[in-house]
Amino acid sequence: ARCGFPEVVLCQGKTPEQAAAIAERLAQAHGRFLATRATPEHFAVVRGRVPDATYHEIARVIRLDRAPAPPRPGYVAVVCAGTGDLPVAEEAAVTLEAMGSAVRRIYDVGVAGLHRLLGQVGAIRQAAVVVVVAGMEGALASVVGGLVDRPVVAVPTSVGYGASLGGLAALLAMLNSCAPGVTVVNIDNGFGAGYAAATIHRAIWEGRERSGGA
Amino acid sequence: ARCGFPEVVLCQGKTPEQAAAIAERLAQAHGRFLATRATPEHFAVVRGRVPDATYHEIARVIRLDRAPAPPRPGYVAVVCAGTGDLPVAEEAAVTLEAMGSAVRRIYDVGVAGLHRLLGQVGAIRQAAVVVVVAGMEGALASVVGGLVDRPVVAVPTSVGYGASLGGLAALLAMLNSCAPGVTVVNIDNGFGAGYAAATIHRAIWEGRERSGGA
Amino acid sequence: ARCGFPEVVLCQGKTPEQAAAIAERLAQAHGRFLATRATPEHFAVVRGRVPDATYHEIARVIRLDRAPAPPRPGYVAVVCAGTGDLPVAEEAAVTLEAMGSAVRRIYDVGVAGLHRLLGQVGAIRQAAVVVVVAGMEGALASVVGGLVDRPVVAVPTSVGYGASLGGLAALLAMLNSCAPGVTVVNIDNGFGAGYAAATIHRAIWEGRERSGGA
Amino acid sequence: ARCGFPEVVLCQGKTPEQAAAIAERLAQAHGRFLATRATPEHFAVVRGRVPDATYHEIARVIRLDRAPAPPRPGYVAVVCAGTGDLPVAEEAAVTLEAMGSAVRRIYDVGVAGLHRLLGQVGAIRQAAVVVVVAGMEGALASVVGGLVDRPVVAVPTSVGYGASLGGLAALLAMLNSCAPGVTVVNIDNGFGAGYAAATIHRAIWEGRERSGGA
Amino acid sequence: ARCGFPEVVLCQGKTPEQAAAIAERLAQAHGRFLATRATPEHFAVVRGRVPDATYHEIARVIRLDRAPAPPRPGYVAVVCAGTGDLPVAEEAAVTLEAMGSAVRRIYDVGVAGLHRLLGQVGAIRQAAVVVVVAGMEGALASVVGGLVDRPVVAVPTSVGYGASLGGLAALLAMLNSCAPGVTVVNIDNGFGAGYAAATIHRAIWEGRERSGGA
Amino acid sequence: ARCGFPEVVLCQGKTPEQAAAIAERLAQAHGRFLATRATPEHFAVVRGRVPDATYHEIARVIRLDRAPAPPRPGYVAVVCAGTGDLPVAEEAAVTLEAMGSAVRRIYDVGVAGLHRLLGQVGAIRQAAVVVVVAGMEGALASVVGGLVDRPVVAVPTSVGYGASLGGLAALLAMLNSCAPGVTVVNIDNGFGAGYAAATIHRAIWEGRERSGGA
Amino acid sequence: ARCGFPEVVLCQGKTPEQAAAIAERLAQAHGRFLATRATPEHFAVVRGRVPDATYHEIARVIRLDRAPAPPRPGYVAVVCAGTGDLPVAEEAAVTLEAMGSAVRRIYDVGVAGLHRLLGQVGAIRQAAVVVVVAGMEGALASVVGGLVDRPVVAVPTSVGYGASLGGLAALLAMLNSCAPGVTVVNIDNGFGAGYAAATIHRAIWEGRERSGGA
Amino acid sequence: ARCGFPEVVLCQGKTPEQAAAIAERLAQAHGRFLATRATPEHFAVVRGRVPDATYHEIARVIRLDRAPAPPRPGYVAVVCAGTGDLPVAEEAAVTLEAMGSAVRRIYDVGVAGLHRLLGQVGAIRQAAVVVVVAGMEGALASVVGGLVDRPVVAVPTSVGYGASLGGLAALLAMLNSCAPGVTVVNIDNGFGAGYAAATIHRAIWEGRERSGGA
Ligand SMILES: Nc1ncnc2c1ncn2[C@@H]1O[C@H](COP(=O)(O)O)[C@@H](O)[C@H]1O
Ligand SMILES: Nc1ncnc2c1ncn2[C@@H]1O[C@H](COP(=O)(O)O)[C@@H](O)[C@H]1O
Ligand SMILES: Nc1ncnc2c1ncn2[C@@H]1O[C@H](COP(=O)(O)O)[C@@H](O)[C@H]1O
Ligand SMILES: Nc1ncnc2c1ncn2[C@@H]1O[C@H](COP(=O)(O)O)[C@@H](O)[C@H]1O
Ligand SMILES: [Mg+2]
Ligand SMILES: [Mg+2]
Ligand SMILES: [Mg+2]
Ligand SMILES: [Mg+2]
Ligand SMILES: [Mg+2]
Ligand SMILES: [Mg+2]
Ligand SMILES: [Mg+2]
Ligand SMILES: [Mg+2]
Repeated sequence: ARCGFPEVVLCQGKTPEQAAAIAERLAQAHGRFLATRATPEHFAVVRGRVPDATYHEIARVIRLDRAPAPPRPGYVAVVCAGTGDLPVAEEAAVTLEAMGSAVRRIYDVGVAGLHRLLGQVGAIRQAAVVVVVAGMEGALASVVGGLVDRPVVAVPTSVGYGASLGGLAALLAMLNSCAPGVTVVNIDNGFGAGYAAATIHRAIWEGRERSGGA
Repeated sequence: ARCGFPEVVLCQGKTPEQAAAIAERLAQAHGRFLATRATPEHFAVVRGRVPDATYHEIARVIRLDRAPAPPRPGYVAVVCAGTGDLPVAEEAAVTLEAMGSAVRRIYDVGVAGLHRLLGQVGAIRQAAVVVVVAGMEGALASVVGGLVDRPVVAVPTSVGYGASLGGLAALLAMLNSCAPGVTVVNIDNGFGAGYAAATIHRAIWEGRERSGGA
Repeated sequence: ARCGFPEVVLCQGKTPEQAAAIAERLAQAHGRFLATRATPEHFAVVRGRVPDATYHEIARVIRLDRAPAPPRPGYVAVVCAGTGDLPVAEEAAVTLEAMGSAVRRIYDVGVAGLHRLLGQVGAIRQAAVVVVVAGMEGALASVVGGLVDRPVVAVPTSVGYGASLGGLAALLAMLNSCAPGVTVVNIDNGFGAGYAAATIHRAIWEGRERSGGA
Repeated sequence: ARCGFPEVVLCQGKTPEQAAAIAERLAQAHGRFLATRATPEHFAVVRGRVPDATYHEIARVIRLDRAPAPPRPGYVAVVCAGTGDLPVAEEAAVTLEAMGSAVRRIYDVGVAGLHRLLGQVGAIRQAAVVVVVAGMEGALASVVGGLVDRPVVAVPTSVGYGASLGGLAALLAMLNSCAPGVTVVNIDNGFGAGYAAATIHRAIWEGRERSGGA
Repeated sequence: ARCGFPEVVLCQGKTPEQAAAIAERLAQAHGRFLATRATPEHFAVVRGRVPDATYHEIARVIRLDRAPAPPRPGYVAVVCAGTGDLPVAEEAAVTLEAMGSAVRRIYDVGVAGLHRLLGQVGAIRQAAVVVVVAGMEGALASVVGGLVDRPVVAVPTSVGYGASLGGLAALLAMLNSCAPGVTVVNIDNGFGAGYAAATIHRAIWEGRERSGGA
Repeated sequence: ARCGFPEVVLCQGKTPEQAAAIAERLAQAHGRFLATRATPEHFAVVRGRVPDATYHEIARVIRLDRAPAPPRPGYVAVVCAGTGDLPVAEEAAVTLEAMGSAVRRIYDVGVAGLHRLLGQVGAIRQAAVVVVVAGMEGALASVVGGLVDRPVVAVPTSVGYGASLGGLAALLAMLNSCAPGVTVVNIDNGFGAGYAAATIHRAIWEGRERSGGA
Repeated sequence: ARCGFPEVVLCQGKTPEQAAAIAERLAQAHGRFLATRATPEHFAVVRGRVPDATYHEIARVIRLDRAPAPPRPGYVAVVCAGTGDLPVAEEAAVTLEAMGSAVRRIYDVGVAGLHRLLGQVGAIRQAAVVVVVAGMEGALASVVGGLVDRPVVAVPTSVGYGASLGGLAALLAMLNSCAPGVTVVNIDNGFGAGYAAATIHRAIWEGRERSGGA
Repeated sequence: ARCGFPEVVLCQGKTPEQAAAIAERLAQAHGRFLATRATPEHFAVVRGRVPDATYHEIARVIRLDRAPAPPRPGYVAVVCAGTGDLPVAEEAAVTLEAMGSAVRRIYDVGVAGLHRLLGQVGAIRQAAVVVVVAGMEGALASVVGGLVDRPVVAVPTSVGYGASLGGLAALLAMLNSCAPGVTVVNIDNGFGAGYAAATIHRAIWEGRERSGGA
């Protein structure tokens, strides 16, 4: 239904043709969809069948929304440590937008240059929900978690080498965050973080009634 | 402040005397506190100094709230797989209550007996937020995540032996949940899950204004 | 002998020429064989020497059976979570068929959409043996194990990324299944699961006499 | 029902009182139960409430069966490498007996003394199902798997030190068995292996009809 | 020699008698020593033989220095995240003092409460060398490393549970620090960090000549 | 500022164009920069925009310093085990030179040929700081650490196969060095080791005043 | 010297030109050398400079010995499980031959077909030293270790997939061998096993005198 | 037989009574045995039944040899890094003596104090076989392996903490030794190293004939 989230296709592990067939079907049935982990090759074939679909290159996401609703009030902050983490941060951001949340991108604020992060505290604190994206040692999640009292969803990335163990170092760090209330998704799972944050954001605006309150 | 969350003491790694000293100070300053991972020995000494503190034995939590506010409307569901997971589920539940959320306990609904879980779907779907607690293979988080469209916070527990690797098997499973939007906290971290869920629940009731909406 | 299982060649780690030489020898000696992990390149060379061999592309299996026996009564259910798991599920299915078991394919029934799985419970319960194939968090094995009282062989797959650790997350989950009696084979080992299930299925039909019963 | 398996209680993680309360309830309702990982302390309290329950000390199992059915024809072989593996082997054996399967114990046949194992090949081959229990390097599963064409369920044990990694070495070895068709359960999970083997054994005797055959 | 570092005894793995015998010999030969990982039981026996030895209880260190030299100018900052990390921080601090470096203790400045850390930046920046001690996610090392341009030695601690993996999470985080130039020692190795920092501090004061400069 | 370290660009994960844009900007603003993990492709594009930049092929580093200061007195020894470790050793050496430290390269002195290492002890002992680079079992760090009383920074490399686990074996060995005071950086992180050693070397020459001494 | 072992070059990580330069130098100085992990590309360039060098393709070894001594009496058995293990077995065998030991190759005797192994027990028992090469679960080392009382050197290989973890499963199994006296080298390290076995074999023939005996 | 090795009992995992029963039986049948991992409690009961058995406390070994043969000529060197490694070194030494090899103990020669090791090179080089015992980073094996051309058997120990991972760091280091020909046994397996070294030593003295030589 219009009020729900769009259907999502994971292109990784599917051929462009397979992805495009699903996309075309969803376009006809619902007029919207989200396709993640899409390569330019995927998009080339999808565009042949769904000409009004758009491609977010850094996010690796194909999107269609023929009747976009206005985003719900407030915004989700997507906070990102380094340039290597951008694809994951953008995957979260585009997912959020596709699911009806406005996004405020606060990028390149890794903890090694704390002043840049501190200059953005106001914008982060005013967010309805915060998504934190960081690789290497993933310390940004703890620092942000300590600065705000909003829900924080942390995404470890596989940026790094050697003892970063493909993102495990950041994942473990985020799970052990000394700032209470930080929750975590899988390594590089920008989609999952965006989906979870949009679910929380939607709950803020639709939830009082559904929770039986008044 | 009264509208914020109480201060929290982690008793693990502290002597009963150390814990009691902090508890007494917090009782005088704020009239409330939460002390987690508290043994009966911790409580014995704390009670000597703060006689109106109460002890939740299964949850291993000491609590004081001299001027409890009425809980916010709606409830958080704490869904738990097996009896071995109860201490972690109760740590989450008591944390939630201390932070102002009503809790609906839905226990002993592991996926090996799916009918019991399915009999509770209504109560889980009406929750504002869902906390899922499971050890061993942690499959409950995926199944619940697929059944509801509310925010889901999953807690893996160290229940199991051998290849459960002290809870790592359940942690990894929850991080790889095929149900989108499930977020995860550290193994056995009922406190962290409760804190995160209470933060979300509070955001639902206080959040529209703060998020700049109307 | 005709009543036994065919010889099996593992093509992985063999050149097309090496695989074809073995296949030709088995074709002459026994009139049947199974070759697993075969690429189209393997099949191209094998077909040159054994023209009546057939190739199961998704399963990556080459098969020859010049005098196929009718399958034994009853069937083995191959239950599969997602489309990424199909190659492993098909490897199990084709192995079962080559070893004389009819197969009922029940695909795309991951636990995030529980209704699809529940719609197939009847067909799963009527199976003689059940093979469950799932990647990511591998929860399907526990749910199916709880729904049936037949032997269940679980195959974790390497589908996933990040904390799926190349299939280890699903493997550990399946080993810790809270549903008793689930047994497990190596990651992506559809062949092994099919072989084990066929061994059990055969034992059901040939076993009473051999087990000293009447 | 009488034809099904008894209810099972896992005593580990339960106090003797908790275990005894459940046992008493099951004794009244069904006249039988199985309680695993039971210490002598558990048994002392259970016996107080269910005087006719018996304790298998090495297996750490408490059993009650007031109306035992005759075991189904044929037997399950429990094959065990060393004396350190005995508790796990006995847990499997007693579970099998409680579930209606006769057991043939073939112990102390580790592969370092191959002649002892070879002297028992006849008895192993005549079994309906084979359970193999081994710690350290777990090689026994592969050797037995190569010697028989019956279903083989392998149980790694935590016997060993250093690089045995608490049983992980044996677990990994068994999952990589070069003998096809060996399936594996969790480290030290004698109960699970016994349950799976009894399920297969029962399927052999009850299964033709249920599998739709004739 | 007087200008070198004292001999060091690691008490862990030695009986009180063994430790005391070595301590007595060093006291006679050099008039000073350092004994780490010493329990009160170790100290009781050491004091019997070397009455002027002193015991640092939190640091678990026994020290003797009958002719202490004045500490070299400047100081080493020991920066510590939480109260659970104190034993390791104190082991580093007492090691530094025994090796001739003045220490400035800056404790309880974990990143979840960033304002406390920022209030100490001046004192940290004026240090000759900085030792950072933190468990859980170990983020403090990255934040401090980004704030100062002095040599930083990081010590991960085993404080935490679950996915902290006995300190591995903090160790990996520190090795992946996004602040360049942070070096790391073993988990809980306060002695090693103190020794390395004292070596650097000494090099600053004795080093120009030895480095061939003028 | 002239007295500080140059800005550093990590080329890995950046396209040649991205790296060149940053390099050009740094060249104009500061007249110097360091770009690590640069491929010949990166250099080709950088040279097009910054013609006086130079490329250190083995070190994979691009450097620009239009007004090089004379190196500070004394030198840093870069000690290297095998030829496979050369890229990492050179990354450390070039980083040191870019940061104002003279370097003495002592290569091919792995512990399997101890005489070669012993022949260089004099040169190593006269260094202000020592960087040790080794893969496989990383034993060189312990041996060098035992031979000198200067600060030692150890870099494990990913040279090796099988149980070297991509450099983890050397990393763990260096963290457990029995020679006190060895500190460690991430696997293959020659840049980090060079940066840390240059920080220490600079502290030796600039540090007395800053440390409050006289 | 003529009585010692030849110099050895590890080609992995070296360009064909680098390898050939070293080979040419060794050919001139000693008239013999061994170059392991050599690709056909390496050999093409080496042959250009040392025309009488020979290439063992499966073993990936280049060898030169212009004045080969007669092999010492007796032989080393190289026992190998599967065809995938052949490159490692041959690397061991060619290393042994280059170092003066005659080799008896006993291949394709994996434990899943125990009869083939038992048919070779005589030849294995008559060997001076035994090298066992196996991947997957590595059980062959334990079985052979139990059958002979000669020194046994085991080599795990990376043959396998999934839970073989790149050879770690076989490595751990061999380290935990229940047959006493089996020693182990690194995964895929045929060279190391051959070198160790040749050292033992040489000690048998030259050792009495050197060991101070008569 | 007299010329073979004595039977060995592993006391770990056996009660004193069980161990004593086996010991008594072996004493009567063979007049000798070796019992490893024996606690003083084990010895107390064994001595009651076999009064002439002796206990090696540090080695944790009980030994009986009523008709000891003169040791074979030459000796095995047992080289040990630190005092914490003594129990493992002694287990190897006593095993060697029980199996007929004279032992030369060369202890406390860790690589951090290289001069002590170098002072013993002569004695190590004259050994028939060398056993190297070391924990922490295990570097001693590589250094000794590079100094001698005799067979070297390395034993990693669990001495260490944190990133020593219970001996895994030393194990991995030894497996990756850059000195060719070092072979390795399980962590803390002094028995296995002694057994392997005695097998090699025996082969040196009995082997020429058995190897078919003259
Ligand atoms: N059970 C728990 N698990 C994890 N963190 C906790 C727990 N209980 C309290 N904490 C955290 O620990 C902090 C208090 O630590 P402390 O100052 O050492 O008492 C709180 O602010 C919480 O963030
Ligand atoms: N896909 C597979 N995964 C694991 N083992 C296999 C597979 N296919 C065949 N095998 C095993 O490999 C053996 C054949 O190996 P090979 O002799 O190398 O062709 C068969 O007997 C099977 O036991
Ligand atoms: N080779 C390297 N390894 C690790 N970190 C590096 C390396 N080279 C540069 N860096 C760090 O990465 C930062 C630059 O990252 P970026 O802004 O993404 O170019 C520098 O300030 C360094 O701290
Ligand atoms: N300390 C030890 N570590 C490893 N294996 C041992 C040890 N001591 C004895 N063994 C092995 O264990 C076998 C005896 O085991 P058991 O029959 O249980 O007493 C011997 O034949 C040895 O192979
Ligand atoms: Mg917060
Ligand atoms: Mg959901
Ligand atoms: Mg079932
Ligand atoms: Mg079989
Ligand atoms: Mg810094
Ligand atoms: Mg030193
Ligand atoms: Mg043997
Ligand atoms: Mg050597």
